[in-house]
Amino acid sequence: MIAPSKNGWVVIAGLGPGNEALVTQEVRDTIDAATDIVGYIPYVKRIAPRDGLTLHASDNRVELDRATHALEMAATGKRVVVVSSGDPGVFAMASAVFEALEAGPKDWLDLDIRVLPGITAMLAAAAQIGAPLGHDFAAINLSDNLKPWSLIETRLRAAGEAGFAMAFYNPRSKSRPHQFARALEILRDACGGDTLISFARDVTKPTQQINTVALKHATPEMADMRTMVIVGNRDTRAIGRFVYTPRSAGDATS
Amino acid sequence: MIAPSKNGWVVIAGLGPGNEALVTQEVRDTIDAATDIVGYIPYVKRIAPRDGLTLHASDNRVELDRATHALEMAATGKRVVVVSSGDPGVFAMASAVFEALEAGPKDWLDLDIRVLPGITAMLAAAAQIGAPLGHDFAAINLSDNLKPWSLIETRLRAAGEAGFAMAFYNPRSKSRPHQFARALEILRDACGGDTLISFARDVTKPTQQINTVALKHATPEMADMRTMVIVGNRDTRAIGRFVYTPRSAGDATS
Repeated sequence: MIAPSKNGWVVIAGLGPGNEALVTQEVRDTIDAATDIVGYIPYVKRIAPRDGLTLHASDNRVELDRATHALEMAATGKRVVVVSSGDPGVFAMASAVFEALEAGPKDWLDLDIRVLPGITAMLAAAAQIGAPLGHDFAAINLSDNLKPWSLIETRLRAAGEAGFAMAFYNPRSKSRPHQFARALEILRDACGGDTLISFARDVTKPTQQINTVALKHATPEMADMRTMVIVGNRDTRAIGRFVYTPRSAGDATS
Repeated sequence: MIAPSKNGWVVIAGLGPGNEALVTQEVRDTIDAATDIVGYIPYVKRIAPRDGLTLHASDNRVELDRATHALEMAATGKRVVVVSSGDPGVFAMASAVFEALEAGPKDWLDLDIRVLPGITAMLAAAAQIGAPLGHDFAAINLSDNLKPWSLIETRLRAAGEAGFAMAFYNPRSKSRPHQFARALEILRDACGGDTLISFARDVTKPTQQINTVALKHATPEMADMRTMVIVGNRDTRAIGRFVYTPRSAGDATS
């Protein structure tokens, strides 16, 4: 076991949804001070190479290996930035690093570890749409990689019936095309068919597309894994080209 | 009615939770291009005065007046930034601007209006705590200024029973001290007394304080209006000085 170096650190940093103007100064400064960048291939590609900086790009679904590697390097004195898209604490790398920390040697607890927030995809999407999350809302990952689908159904129903607006990460993949169709069914039932749903693809990128329809007109193929999906509550409405949820709510949730 | 000027615009911009290093470049650039800044007094104070920039600071609870004023100025050709703390789409000014737009003259619909996201308080707080929002979560405003308290109780119970982590904005005020005590009761009942709750006061400011306890040990005076409160789910745990919610979840929500 290598004794932790006082000079090494791990920072889990959010790069925002894609547009470089949405990266915070705090994250820029930390990347400038790093010796090593660790992350999923497309996020590491966003980091400009320079002398003294080693880029470690890895494939999807190896989050724990990547996190362990980052901690190992920090323990030898490296200054490591784990890059996430969006915000690292929202369905991204921060939890994976703490899982690796928990599974690792005890002296890793003395390492300098920090999390730097970023603009998460749902808030970037909401800003492009208007203000669909302007009242109480829930953020749900629709992927069943790490939880049973039945739990996702329970949460969709609970949030819809209680009148939360909702934002969905990873709404649809090729390996489970039927699930998003089922999610739309539950939402129509829990929220009513007139509730607005927005599909925001490639948010803040040049290829961005926004599409808003009533839930009764929503179809599964409106979403893919590059789409953030936002469902309003029963008060959510369109004004001009915008969709927003008013700040006030009445008594009824149905 | 004044015809909209093609040169005027309104941007609703998020300044993040307080630390200037968390402001995005997009927001900085937009403030540099503005002729007028509109907002609540403490947020307008964060903008550096300069020639050609007029600061319009107003008191709390006049959000609609402020939004209408911003749209009026844009219609006369001004370049107006409405500043919010955190993210403008999360319990902040974006919805108020769209409410004012809906209530205003029809030609305001032609105005150039944009929303620029910012780091919202719950994600800044989560980053300081570790990753307590690392799984599905709900964001709830505990103020009953704009909704009945009964609806807040319904949402707390629904989110807790469905196993969402939760972030609370405006958890407690002097005018309604008993309500947060009631919220804690509901949370203990819905989430179990061992679930972790974190109180993050003055997040990212020099005066920042973080305090995490089990729900059964939480007391109302641990929060005030400058505190973000984050409740984990039943899997949320402490590792070293951090609190995090694992990425995976089992079947049970109780």
